[in-house]
Amino acid sequence: MEKGRLLYEGKAKQLFATEDENILFVSYKDSATAFNGEKKEEIDGKGILNNKITTILFDQLKKHGIESHFVERISENEQLVRKVEIIPLEVVVRNVAAGSIAKRLGIEEGIPLKHSIVEFYYKDDELGDPLLTNAHLGLLALATPEEIETIETKALEVNKVLQPLFKEIGVTLIDFKLEFGKTPDGKILLADEISPDTCRLWDDETNKKLDKDVFRRNLGSLTEVYETILSRLGGLSK
Amino acid sequence: MEKGRLLYEGKAKQLFATEDENILFVSYKDSATAFNGEKKEEIDGKGILNNKITTILFDQLKKHGIESHFVERISENEQLVRKVEIIPLEVVVRNVAAGSIAKRLGIEEGIPLKHSIVEFYYKDDELGDPLLTNAHLGLLALATPEEIETIETKALEVNKVLQPLFKEIGVTLIDFKLEFGKTPDGKILLADEISPDTCRLWDDETNKKLDKDVFRRNLGSLTEVYETILSRLGGLSK
Ligand SMILES: Nc1ncnc2c1ncn2[C@@H]1O[C@H](COP(=O)(O)OP(=O)(O)O)[C@@H](O)[C@H]1O
Ligand SMILES: Nc1ncnc2c1ncn2[C@@H]1O[C@H](COP(=O)(O)OP(=O)(O)O)[C@@H](O)[C@H]1O
Ligand SMILES: [Mg+2]
Ligand SMILES: [Mg+2]
Repeated sequence: MEKGRLLYEGKAKQLFATEDENILFVSYKDSATAFNGEKKEEIDGKGILNNKITTILFDQLKKHGIESHFVERISENEQLVRKVEIIPLEVVVRNVAAGSIAKRLGIEEGIPLKHSIVEFYYKDDELGDPLLTNAHLGLLALATPEEIETIETKALEVNKVLQPLFKEIGVTLIDFKLEFGKTPDGKILLADEISPDTCRLWDDETNKKLDKDVFRRNLGSLTEVYETILSRLGGLSK
Repeated sequence: MEKGRLLYEGKAKQLFATEDENILFVSYKDSATAFNGEKKEEIDGKGILNNKITTILFDQLKKHGIESHFVERISENEQLVRKVEIIPLEVVVRNVAAGSIAKRLGIEEGIPLKHSIVEFYYKDDELGDPLLTNAHLGLLALATPEEIETIETKALEVNKVLQPLFKEIGVTLIDFKLEFGKTPDGKILLADEISPDTCRLWDDETNKKLDKDVFRRNLGSLTEVYETILSRLGGLSK
C-alpha cells in the first residue's frame, strides 16, 4: 500500500491517502500535547510506542470480537486503517474517578465509581471539548439517538475487554477516550487510537501513573512509562 | 401563622420555621448576586418584586393543574410554602440559546432551539454548580432515575404553561431554573421561586432583557425591568 497525499494533520497523527480510497495510512507523530494544545513538546520515540500499543490493543479487541478501523501495522510508527467519517465526539469511559470528573463532582481521585460510566464530549478544540448531555446530543445531531446508543454500548464492551487485559499486566484502567466513525455503508466503527495518550493507566503495585498524565503533570519520562506499558502488553498470555 | 426561628439564609431568601412543621415562612431579600456570589449588591425593592412575581406565577401554574410548594403570600416580601426536602439540582429548561449553553456549544444567543430541553446542574456552590449528565445523576444518586424522569416531565409541563403566559404579555421565555423537593410522603413537588432572578425574559418588541441579566451584565436598573414584568403579569387576562 503506498502513502499518498497528506489528508489531515492532527495533534498526534498524520493521515495519508492510499491507492485504496477506503484505506488510510496513519503516521504516529512524536508530539505530545495537553490542555487543548497549550502544553506541547516533541518526544523522541512516542509515535513508535503509541503505534505499537494501539496495534496490540486493537488486535486484542478483534480477538474478543470487537471490530475497529485497524487493518495492520506497516512500520515502526505507521499503520493502515479503514477510512471512516469520524463522529466528532470524544467518548470517555470511566471506571475510577480521576481528572475532570473528580474535579467537577468533588470526588477524590482514585475512588472507584459505583459502576462504569460513559461520557460524551463534543470534539471541538475551539469550544474546549465541552461535556454533552443527552439533550445536547439531540440538539447537535452529530449522530442519531440510535447511533449514540450503539456507541455507548460498544464503548462499554471495549471496557469489558480492556479492563481485565490491563489487570493481567498489573495495571488498572482508570478511564479512556474512544472515537467512532461511520463506514460508507453507515455502520458505526471504533476508530482513532487506544494508547497511554488516551487512557489513564495506574500501576497496581506502585500506584504510579503510566500514561499521559506523566506529561500533563510533569511526573517524569513519558517514554519510560509508555515503554513499560508496551513491554508488559508484549507478555500478554493470549 | 407566626414567624419562628431562622432555619436557613440563602443568597435571595430567608427561611423561617412556623408553628406548623410542614410550613415554612419565606422572606425575599433585596440582595442581588451573580457569578456564584462574586457580584453582589443590595437593591431596594427587589425582594418585594420577586415575592409578588413568584406568587402570580405559582398561582397561574396551580390554575393550570401544576402543584407547587406555594401556599400564600402574607406580606409585601413574605410568603408561606410547604416545607420539602430540596433535591440539590438546578433544573434548567431552555427554549432559546442564551448564557452558558450558547457559550458551551457555540450557538449564537437568541437562536431558538429545535425543541425545548432540560438540563440538570448539581446545586453546589463550592463546585460551581456543574452540569450533570444522566450518568453523573446515576453516580451522585441525589434522586432515583424515576424521580429524575418525573422532574424532567414536570419541568417541561411548567414550560408549557409559562411560555404562552409570558407570550401573552409580550415576553419570550428564553430559559428558566427550577428546584424540586420531596414531601414527607415522598412526592416530588415544585419548590423555590420563579422570578426574573431565575428566568431569562426578553421583550418581544424591543428585544430588551427583562431579567437578572440586567444586573449580571450591567444593562440598567434591575427594579425597573422587574416592575415591568410584575405590572404586565398583573394584566393577565385569566
Ligand atoms: N479511521 C479513521 N478515518 C478517518 N479519520 C480518522 C480515523 N481514525 C482517526 N481519525 C482522525 O484522525 C485525526 C488525527 O488524529 P489526531 O492527531 O489524534 O487528531 P486530533 O488532534 O484531532 O486529536 C483525528 O481527527 C481523528 O478523529
Ligand atoms: N419549600 C421549600 N422547603 C425547603 N427549602 C426550600 C423550599 N423552597 C426553597 N428552598 C430552599 O431555600 C433556600 C433559600 O433560597 P435562596 O436564597 O434562593 O438560596 P440559594 O442561595 O441556595 O439559591 C434554598 O436552599 C432553596 O433550595
Ligand atoms: Mg487525537
Ligand atoms: Mg436560590
